[in-house]
Amino acid sequence: MASAFGERLKISVFGESHGAGIGALADGFPAGFPIDTDALMRFMERRQGGRNALSTSRKEPDVPVFVSGVTDGKTNGFPLCIQIANTNTKSSDYKNLVDIPRPSHADYSAYVKWHGNADMRGGGHFSGRLTAPICAAGGIAKQMLAKCNIHVGAHLLSVEGVQDERFSLSPDAALFAQIAGKMFPVISDDAGRAMQQAILAAREAQDSVGGRIECAVTGVPAGLGDPMFDGIENRLARVLFGIPAVKGVEFGDGFALSDMRGSAANDPFCMDAGKVAAETNRNGGILGGITTGMPVRFTVGIKPTPSISQKQRSVSLSSLQNAELEIHGRHDPCIAQRAVPVIEACAALVMLDVLLCSGYDLSDIAED
Amino acid sequence: MASAFGERLKISVFGESHGAGIGALADGFPAGFPIDTDALMRFMERRQGGRNALSTSRKEPDVPVFVSGVTDGKTNGFPLCIQIANTNTKSSDYKNLVDIPRPSHADYSAYVKWHGNADMRGGGHFSGRLTAPICAAGGIAKQMLAKCNIHVGAHLLSVEGVQDERFSLSPDAALFAQIAGKMFPVISDDAGRAMQQAILAAREAQDSVGGRIECAVTGVPAGLGDPMFDGIENRLARVLFGIPAVKGVEFGDGFALSDMRGSAANDPFCMDAGKVAAETNRNGGILGGITTGMPVRFTVGIKPTPSISQKQRSVSLSSLQNAELEIHGRHDPCIAQRAVPVIEACAALVMLDVLLCSGYDLSDIAED
Amino acid sequence: MASAFGERLKISVFGESHGAGIGALADGFPAGFPIDTDALMRFMERRQGGRNALSTSRKEPDVPVFVSGVTDGKTNGFPLCIQIANTNTKSSDYKNLVDIPRPSHADYSAYVKWHGNADMRGGGHFSGRLTAPICAAGGIAKQMLAKCNIHVGAHLLSVEGVQDERFSLSPDAALFAQIAGKMFPVISDDAGRAMQQAILAAREAQDSVGGRIECAVTGVPAGLGDPMFDGIENRLARVLFGIPAVKGVEFGDGFALSDMRGSAANDPFCMDAGKVAAETNRNGGILGGITTGMPVRFTVGIKPTPSISQKQRSVSLSSLQNAELEIHGRHDPCIAQRAVPVIEACAALVMLDVLLCSGYDLSDIAED
Amino acid sequence: MASAFGERLKISVFGESHGAGIGALADGFPAGFPIDTDALMRFMERRQGGRNALSTSRKEPDVPVFVSGVTDGKTNGFPLCIQIANTNTKSSDYKNLVDIPRPSHADYSAYVKWHGNADMRGGGHFSGRLTAPICAAGGIAKQMLAKCNIHVGAHLLSVEGVQDERFSLSPDAALFAQIAGKMFPVISDDAGRAMQQAILAAREAQDSVGGRIECAVTGVPAGLGDPMFDGIENRLARVLFGIPAVKGVEFGDGFALSDMRGSAANDPFCMDAGKVAAETNRNGGILGGITTGMPVRFTVGIKPTPSISQKQRSVSLSSLQNAELEIHGRHDPCIAQRAVPVIEACAALVMLDVLLCSGYDLSDIAED
Repeated sequence: MASAFGERLKISVFGESHGAGIGALADGFPAGFPIDTDALMRFMERRQGGRNALSTSRKEPDVPVFVSGVTDGKTNGFPLCIQIANTNTKSSDYKNLVDIPRPSHADYSAYVKWHGNADMRGGGHFSGRLTAPICAAGGIAKQMLAKCNIHVGAHLLSVEGVQDERFSLSPDAALFAQIAGKMFPVISDDAGRAMQQAILAAREAQDSVGGRIECAVTGVPAGLGDPMFDGIENRLARVLFGIPAVKGVEFGDGFALSDMRGSAANDPFCMDAGKVAAETNRNGGILGGITTGMPVRFTVGIKPTPSISQKQRSVSLSSLQNAELEIHGRHDPCIAQRAVPVIEACAALVMLDVLLCSGYDLSDIAED
Repeated sequence: MASAFGERLKISVFGESHGAGIGALADGFPAGFPIDTDALMRFMERRQGGRNALSTSRKEPDVPVFVSGVTDGKTNGFPLCIQIANTNTKSSDYKNLVDIPRPSHADYSAYVKWHGNADMRGGGHFSGRLTAPICAAGGIAKQMLAKCNIHVGAHLLSVEGVQDERFSLSPDAALFAQIAGKMFPVISDDAGRAMQQAILAAREAQDSVGGRIECAVTGVPAGLGDPMFDGIENRLARVLFGIPAVKGVEFGDGFALSDMRGSAANDPFCMDAGKVAAETNRNGGILGGITTGMPVRFTVGIKPTPSISQKQRSVSLSSLQNAELEIHGRHDPCIAQRAVPVIEACAALVMLDVLLCSGYDLSDIAED
Repeated sequence: MASAFGERLKISVFGESHGAGIGALADGFPAGFPIDTDALMRFMERRQGGRNALSTSRKEPDVPVFVSGVTDGKTNGFPLCIQIANTNTKSSDYKNLVDIPRPSHADYSAYVKWHGNADMRGGGHFSGRLTAPICAAGGIAKQMLAKCNIHVGAHLLSVEGVQDERFSLSPDAALFAQIAGKMFPVISDDAGRAMQQAILAAREAQDSVGGRIECAVTGVPAGLGDPMFDGIENRLARVLFGIPAVKGVEFGDGFALSDMRGSAANDPFCMDAGKVAAETNRNGGILGGITTGMPVRFTVGIKPTPSISQKQRSVSLSSLQNAELEIHGRHDPCIAQRAVPVIEACAALVMLDVLLCSGYDLSDIAED
Repeated sequence: MASAFGERLKISVFGESHGAGIGALADGFPAGFPIDTDALMRFMERRQGGRNALSTSRKEPDVPVFVSGVTDGKTNGFPLCIQIANTNTKSSDYKNLVDIPRPSHADYSAYVKWHGNADMRGGGHFSGRLTAPICAAGGIAKQMLAKCNIHVGAHLLSVEGVQDERFSLSPDAALFAQIAGKMFPVISDDAGRAMQQAILAAREAQDSVGGRIECAVTGVPAGLGDPMFDGIENRLARVLFGIPAVKGVEFGDGFALSDMRGSAANDPFCMDAGKVAAETNRNGGILGGITTGMPVRFTVGIKPTPSISQKQRSVSLSSLQNAELEIHGRHDPCIAQRAVPVIEACAALVMLDVLLCSGYDLSDIAED
């Protein structure tokens, strides 16, 4: 499926950084849902750069156009094609990158795979810009889930070691909304300020930093997902590793569980208001790949932006000799904060697909 | 695809812990390959328990029977069905687990999903025993890859915080063979001894421990994999999270990259004996989801065995009240060391599939 | 997916004519359904040969064994592996076929595809015998559908030009049962006798004949299926062409519609007992790939058995020269009558999958 | 996959008749291929209406725009999004169709499936107009195949019983080009004239006619395709039934084989210029789902255009009463002649995908 994922809701992503446009094709959205386009624009703005010193100065207005799948503002049951124009491409910035692959970018691996025929200007199809259509589709999925009282939220958990608070056992939708409204998506603004200082310091040093993002989905019914290779973890991980710079994914307490004993790592079940719940949620709401009814919770690790202004060592693909590389042009000292809504989008798309696969009744989301 | 994965090489896993048998159906193995069944048995023994105090006392001889797909000891091009009998099932051990779900097992989530109709004795289809057929199929894949000079190796990287050495930039096949020959799969035997002590201490305390596994695949050509959601990372992560108790997956230096600066995290390219290589491999041989030619390297985090002998808090599904649970019967104080060959098997199956998807010429592996 | 199909209910078929066994892996059957094994055996007997002069003398008892997926006689929600042993293989019969490919068999195309490494004795994985596990899985699906008042029936529509009656606008389950109980699966026994004479005449002439099969599924709710390439027609056709010797598939009046005018071909809608129905069903209950609520109806064309006792022209693959071929051993003068339950099995599996994909509530089929 | 198909080359179709635009997303085209856009336009014009009295008067210029996947006129390896604007939509024409479903259209089945929320103006996503993007993608595939000396051609085989000649055993590319250049795509112009008269007579009678299309693919290597459910027949049939109005698909002599004896139906192999060939090709170049090296040949049956000007019987979905319907507006008295290039497009896309799945070396099609 390459640039696509999903079973009953299939998302296919297309476009290159310096082509005519980018977009996503979403096949399987329930019909009759009125899309709140204002809310969608606000959601998409969260991943956009150009708002402050922390981001690239590329200021492209990411306006999603519905080419198909929407009639009179409502989903019409047919494949929904979202398109975003590329209006601010300066390909000259990247011209010198063709011969000398940028370290830790896909330049070299793509060069080999496509025998030099891929259009890798600006990162081509691998550019972080391709996450915009994922956000457009995911933003719609988030709205649909919210109608079912399923809420998706994420925040920047750490930047270069500076930690935010973790989500509580059962974060509420108000907290998600609050984080979404901030310029810098953290729970603790103190932590946020320290993170921003770390980012600016890296920028000052012509360097970059990475970060971690924690995401939670609340209101998820128990019993969703399929065993073994189509569990919630499998589906989410497959999609999350498709987001540029993601190098690690863990569910619940993840790798930290590997250092615990079973008595500390197990989540005791308990009755809560007449329903089966758990005292703790170290497994991230998923056991055997299937939801337990506790919030689905996971963390992704984002590597530092590979594009840095410092001189770097590389090779020349034409002369097959060692070479030096200086990357000019626009790039973010940190992309982790911009990736927060992208992670939410992925989570929303996967969870909506899983609901559709499970025969969950979504007819209420249609509007007469 | 649920209990199945793969594109040109499809692996479907079946069976329950207490049913008649377990197995795997592998559709897509190249034809004409002579399977070394002795080597396959030795590989499968690596994941079996019952060999020492570290493992469960369940001593089932995992003998894979080829129901189809093999003629005169060679793959015949058709779907290969491997079956392993269940000969040592004592279902009474698990009888009391039906009403009171075991914490951090799939008992409860499966109960909800299948409305109480799933056969969860011994963990049912979620049992770690289901990794045996994965090893059988993966062991064959390993043999095929070895003929192409692609080698897969793994070791236990840590147990409850005790660390083994990491793989070097380019581990060789001899090291993999050496680890595979050890009773305890580590690079440093000193570390191995400390890990074993940690496991025995946990056992003593009626508790369990988890661990991390590092895996590497060497000899992988550059340019393999598909962009976005079908990259090497996506494919591997989807499969690895299908292994019971895996809660985290990271590629290269993974989460540690999130704390680094770009100047430290980037892998400079360099010429090595006339070929493009890299000075470091913090990205685990994968950029943009596509192989770089450096070894593919990843780490998985395994949670502690959820079955512990200590009394635990849970609920009764029949009375919907809080309840206590004591798990008797056979269970490992640590499963991480037994998971090492399973992780190798997954890596081998995914890499072989990717080679087949890429049109890589595998005709040499057939024998006249 | 090769030897597999289905979306939420996946059927994978394995085995070769002369291997240890054959079988099917069915992943996705609803849990808790009590399988009527007697009825299943009777269904499977319908496709078996050896009962009279019309069929091969190979008398293998096709006893399906449930390796997994069934507990205490009920589906347990996990992948259901059905296995049938090969007990009556006489490979010497087919020995001379390896070098000289049999005309209109897969011998030559398989030889090229697998570079001579496929085990083609008895047709290998292409043997009609592989339809036995399809019947086993499909027989279970038929039972499940019947609990939902969806009934699947088929009959031999023609043999070498001799025609049976067609199904009426709304055939009832009693007719299906009546046909299923006959030694020769037709509506009109007069037509059946004439067909049998045609078959015996062909046999007498060391020749073979083909036939057509009409199949109907009644009680299908309107609105099932997905547009374009995942409609009912697409899904059924993909599976039906997987049955050996099927060379044509048409829905409703099929090719005959191509010769009609629109005014004669269109099915006028009408109200029937307060519900939307149609006066005619020339479109076979499917419009735009989606069910209309009228019976799903289709016809498949089966070519004559390629194995005939007459001397035939072929080539020698070793000497690359023209050669003559005489096929000895067991073969049916007509396989169309034996294919009738196989077509029903395919229809049942596809329709059950479509119900599952549509979120149709199947919880009633579970038994407490 | 719904509105999508393909394994290593995935085609997803989007758009509605009366939306902003329609298009196709093609993921998997080999990189570096220079698209001949003039030839592509000429190919697409073949399926367009408005050229004479035989077709609808809707004259929309189907100009494909490459939103992504093409750089400097060459495929760049990334998903190729083709878009075609809808410029000539007169939705008022169809307004009265919402309540009273048109017989033999998808109006009613879609109404039930999407609970009235689908945008069915002009047939919505089911409109024949959606075959334009299939032609755009398929036209590119045809060009790529031609570079590999694989040629795809089709012609109108019959209209309301008037027959064209059939393709010879090995039709050459020149014949395909000749047919493609005709206003009416037949081999025999005499037959073509008679067909056109039949179409005009139907139009005169406010009625419509259907037809059959024969398609052949020459130069196909032997050994392509996968067994059982992923053979060439399965793949083609699944896609062909996605073309509106296709109700039957047969390979080689198809249903006619059902009336033959084996001795007449079998294709004897023979040596031809040192290569294995066959004396006849009644099986359409496919045995066991796998190519034999003979031309792949199949026939599809197209039903008469369901939209006719005559008054028809239907029901009112709002009042649930019988009702009458008069369809005004633009519609073709026959669509079969316009479907000819669409069938070629489907065949080209499927065959190119199968080549990619088989690891066939396509690197020659890239241009430096």
